[in-house]
Amino acid sequence: MVLEPLQASDLETIVTGVNLLWVLVVTFLIFFMHAGFAMLEAGQVRSKNVANQLTKNLLTWSVGVTVFFLIGAGFSSLVGGGGFVPAFETSDPNSWVSWLFGAVFAMTAATIVSGAVAGRAKLRAYVTYTFLLAAVIYPFVTGITWSGAYISFGGEAFHDFAGGMIVHGMGGIAGLTAAYVLGPRMGRYNEDGSANVIPGHSLTFAVLGTLILAFGWYGFNVGTAATVFALEDGALSLGAFSYVGRVAMTTTIAMACGAIGAAAVAWAKTGKVDTLYVANGLLAGLVGITAIPDTTTWWGAFLVGGLAGAQLPIVFSFIEKRLKIDDVCAVFPVHGSAGVLGTLMFPFVAVPGTVDSIANAFVAQLIGVTAIAAWTIVATGAVWAVLKAIGQARVTPEHEQEGLDVSEHGVETYPEFGSGESVVADGGIMTEDVRTDGGSKDD
Amino acid sequence: MVLEPLQASDLETIVTGVNLLWVLVVTFLIFFMHAGFAMLEAGQVRSKNVANQLTKNLLTWSVGVTVFFLIGAGFSSLVGGGGFVPAFETSDPNSWVSWLFGAVFAMTAATIVSGAVAGRAKLRAYVTYTFLLAAVIYPFVTGITWSGAYISFGGEAFHDFAGGMIVHGMGGIAGLTAAYVLGPRMGRYNEDGSANVIPGHSLTFAVLGTLILAFGWYGFNVGTAATVFALEDGALSLGAFSYVGRVAMTTTIAMACGAIGAAAVAWAKTGKVDTLYVANGLLAGLVGITAIPDTTTWWGAFLVGGLAGAQLPIVFSFIEKRLKIDDVCAVFPVHGSAGVLGTLMFPFVAVPGTVDSIANAFVAQLIGVTAIAAWTIVATGAVWAVLKAIGQARVTPEHEQEGLDVSEHGVETYPEFGSGESVVADGGIMTEDVRTDGGSKDD
Amino acid sequence: MVLEPLQASDLETIVTGVNLLWVLVVTFLIFFMHAGFAMLEAGQVRSKNVANQLTKNLLTWSVGVTVFFLIGAGFSSLVGGGGFVPAFETSDPNSWVSWLFGAVFAMTAATIVSGAVAGRAKLRAYVTYTFLLAAVIYPFVTGITWSGAYISFGGEAFHDFAGGMIVHGMGGIAGLTAAYVLGPRMGRYNEDGSANVIPGHSLTFAVLGTLILAFGWYGFNVGTAATVFALEDGALSLGAFSYVGRVAMTTTIAMACGAIGAAAVAWAKTGKVDTLYVANGLLAGLVGITAIPDTTTWWGAFLVGGLAGAQLPIVFSFIEKRLKIDDVCAVFPVHGSAGVLGTLMFPFVAVPGTVDSIANAFVAQLIGVTAIAAWTIVATGAVWAVLKAIGQARVTPEHEQEGLDVSEHGVETYPEFGSGESVVADGGIMTEDVRTDGGSKDD
Repeated sequence: MVLEPLQASDLETIVTGVNLLWVLVVTFLIFFMHAGFAMLEAGQVRSKNVANQLTKNLLTWSVGVTVFFLIGAGFSSLVGGGGFVPAFETSDPNSWVSWLFGAVFAMTAATIVSGAVAGRAKLRAYVTYTFLLAAVIYPFVTGITWSGAYISFGGEAFHDFAGGMIVHGMGGIAGLTAAYVLGPRMGRYNEDGSANVIPGHSLTFAVLGTLILAFGWYGFNVGTAATVFALEDGALSLGAFSYVGRVAMTTTIAMACGAIGAAAVAWAKTGKVDTLYVANGLLAGLVGITAIPDTTTWWGAFLVGGLAGAQLPIVFSFIEKRLKIDDVCAVFPVHGSAGVLGTLMFPFVAVPGTVDSIANAFVAQLIGVTAIAAWTIVATGAVWAVLKAIGQARVTPEHEQEGLDVSEHGVETYPEFGSGESVVADGGIMTEDVRTDGGSKDD
Repeated sequence: MVLEPLQASDLETIVTGVNLLWVLVVTFLIFFMHAGFAMLEAGQVRSKNVANQLTKNLLTWSVGVTVFFLIGAGFSSLVGGGGFVPAFETSDPNSWVSWLFGAVFAMTAATIVSGAVAGRAKLRAYVTYTFLLAAVIYPFVTGITWSGAYISFGGEAFHDFAGGMIVHGMGGIAGLTAAYVLGPRMGRYNEDGSANVIPGHSLTFAVLGTLILAFGWYGFNVGTAATVFALEDGALSLGAFSYVGRVAMTTTIAMACGAIGAAAVAWAKTGKVDTLYVANGLLAGLVGITAIPDTTTWWGAFLVGGLAGAQLPIVFSFIEKRLKIDDVCAVFPVHGSAGVLGTLMFPFVAVPGTVDSIANAFVAQLIGVTAIAAWTIVATGAVWAVLKAIGQARVTPEHEQEGLDVSEHGVETYPEFGSGESVVADGGIMTEDVRTDGGSKDD
Repeated sequence: MVLEPLQASDLETIVTGVNLLWVLVVTFLIFFMHAGFAMLEAGQVRSKNVANQLTKNLLTWSVGVTVFFLIGAGFSSLVGGGGFVPAFETSDPNSWVSWLFGAVFAMTAATIVSGAVAGRAKLRAYVTYTFLLAAVIYPFVTGITWSGAYISFGGEAFHDFAGGMIVHGMGGIAGLTAAYVLGPRMGRYNEDGSANVIPGHSLTFAVLGTLILAFGWYGFNVGTAATVFALEDGALSLGAFSYVGRVAMTTTIAMACGAIGAAAVAWAKTGKVDTLYVANGLLAGLVGITAIPDTTTWWGAFLVGGLAGAQLPIVFSFIEKRLKIDDVCAVFPVHGSAGVLGTLMFPFVAVPGTVDSIANAFVAQLIGVTAIAAWTIVATGAVWAVLKAIGQARVTPEHEQEGLDVSEHGVETYPEFGSGESVVADGGIMTEDVRTDGGSKDD
């Protein structure tokens, strides 16, 4: 064993290795959020549309991540002023870790939309939109913020630590826009304008999805404190890990208070504690803190989380009753309004000294929120309007009635259960065309 | 690049950063156990009580973690002799990582109870108990053990590495106590005292929960080897990681032998391998080793795990037939008796040299187990007795018959499936008050 | 604080600690794949066989890992030329981390088989096979490859980075062999030889399992880059982490292209995008890249993943229609043929400079694939043929008709749902022998 003093080059290796390790682990956690979204959304749709929702989630990831590899990441750097540098052009394989870390955030934004357009959007329409979101719409948002840092006011920069607005706000607003253009599901509203509730098929899957998402969210928020170590002029220090404990604490407290806030408002309104409100409130609390977990005080985490949860039943009701938009999985109240709320509360709940001017910081936040919202509404609205104009946005009324599982995928999600529509014969053998293993008897 | 010798301060930074990274990752894993408990318990209750069970799990975490932040952590340090230091009073944000690491253990103890009182406890009663558990009951247990280390005998200290008794034993005993005070579900026992079985609604969710728990348990046990590195007088060494391989191995072997042990006993008793016994046996094996994974020999892991699994069917039967306590999710045989068993076996299966006196060490373990059990029974019994006395412990017989999902939460978990009670009309539209999205048609 | 230059011994400690941390984390992720397999397989079987499938998954892990501890790991080192070194004989507890890392790969191979023999294999037959697989069959494969590295041609060594052939190919081929010996489920084929489809009971569980598997797969592939740091002659460098970004990227892209490839072929064949094909295609893409994520170019990842997905519907149809083998969960097209495909494509898609001779490298791959396949077919076929000859391979026709849950486990998975066979009385009390909690009224 050589006993000589270590050199600074060893320190560089240590920093690189440990930071890579951390980013990989949190990236895996964020990826796992797709299982959460899949279960949360599947639980909130009718049993005749479950396979459609699941397929959308699988294809969101699959189509989106390849498009983000070929186009989106490069477009983001282009918008950010770094030229078009596609992800496949690299001399350092480990730069792909950074790409993948960015990709899992992008795919989170993409998958949120599927919950809003459930039950009536054509698969090809949804995939087309996902393609464009991964290639252009979302990368533009990261281009003007995380890449380009163009937004500021009076010396205060727009602050969105982990994507409360950039990822979740964007996704929630895109979902609401798409749901508006698409129109509500059949039977969602009566002729007099009153709303019918179309309950999801499984609260168990919905809550499972919620808890998977919360698990992955620790990767999302705490993982955005991506540098365990920093090295400057040969001096080693904790990087973002110097404040990682705050991120972990505020994320936890806001999550908890989101659930409590939504539960309290639901209880006050109806005398009962609606399970789905508690679950979605927990998620709204997470969304609320996502822009600001690095700077928020402990009491701010209580406040932001509590308000993000409390607004959920109110905003959901407003969307449903006043705007009459059929946002199936409540993605706007959970991701949209909660994301906007937390982003705007940044300067008011920040640790003293975080900003020089609360007023200027608020305006910077307001500009950022407005810019992202406007772009998202225009781009998303345009895509779905075109799809609608060419008759490709929505399935036929017959297919909608029948369920998208059969019409779009040729499968039944639960061939042995359900409302007497089972085509399974007594012997347990299904001989019709509708099957779940994808095989075909006569091909 | 500056090529000068590194300094000892760099070593401090490396130790801090890597240890933080590890503790954060395992904390996330332990948090994910809530998804496991939610699924395990949901699967073991009737479909009419699933949403209630899920809501309890969400609120256990949400209410419990905020209470532990505001009160519980401080109370634990107070009991441990360190004064009342609430979690929000800190000058170092990274101390919140330690708080969160403690909080996920506390919430594990709390959530175990919900499985025992399923199907008849009022939501407000359960939340009240959770509040008190997170504020006082559990922190007292950690205060006298991990914080204060008050328990020892003849120079041998009470040993509970990851909470086999402190977390699981405590939770299992609390659950049994609460279930006893609350009384059995309607129809659970006949007039002649014989027991009816009320099967859970989904073995698939129960097994999913089991495997999620096992995954998270690696964080629970292996993660309690919380220090990758230690630094003493400028000398770097592996901290708890010097024996982390033993923790990982014994946890794995005990888990496996728990499943085999329960399967073998079930097979011997009935000639069939009951799925739920295998699953719960796997968990009992994990509970059994949790107090002692750091010190147990490989053959000890086989023994502890096998016995923890084998006792499950026997203890479950004893609780059900003799004590006539309706422990719905078998939390006492899984967490209580298995935890006690493993804790008491400590000196007999430990690596030679671990203890000076096996007899003294056993007495120390016995004192610890007795103290924790006595406190838990008294505190839990008192809380539920008061709730019962004021008529707030249990839902009305009508609500119990109807199911807690409707009466406490106003939802149906599976509106499209089940026993012909579905209120969904042919067109797939539900117009009654019972809905799953929390909205209300006329509010 | 002592301010003296650090020593090289510190570097050794850092390398050991961080590498242990990484391997532990990825090992946990790989373990979690058992939850994925359990859900994927449970979703693809009839509701009357779900508990059987779940029990098999629990026992695969439990029996397999103890056998691998006592025998398998030692047998692998014996075959590899290192003598019989059982896992329990060690002077360094941290060597158990390496053992556990190997064990989770072994158990992956084992569990694949259960999907192929679903719905008719006796539990004792399956457990017997699992015992032999963990003790001998799989360890022989790793013995001649990862341990012994015996296979090469013209100076090119057989290359299988994370087990595309060694784990998945082996498992898929073993499953097909066992399913062939066992014969198809009753009613799977008509007298004229045409096939009936027997759909699984829940696409939601199947897709959940898929996404859990994909999550764990990051541990499987990226984690096989197991050395964050390497230390040679006192010089610190990144170990496998020098190319870890490539592993992460190719794994991601191949997964995505697998889903797209299968979706495209399914759509071309039937005009619909079958959900289960998309899910299994995603997994096939992962299997395809598993042998070669460390060396494959970005375009190679697109190609391997796309082909692995595209072959799935075609190979599945061939197995079903031509070979008439009832591979219930499509484990051969997903794990077998996709694993073979990726392993053989190694030299053609590798980064330039990886191999000296593409032809020789291809032959080396071909030898490895052939050797593993031949051994697996012979060993697996022999075991199941013996079991069949002594009448212990398959349940009786009555039990198969009734479902294995009742006959083998004495439980019903969903006592409240399903095809009118529920034995639950109106009051929610089940008094028959078939129960899910394992208790027995009269024992």
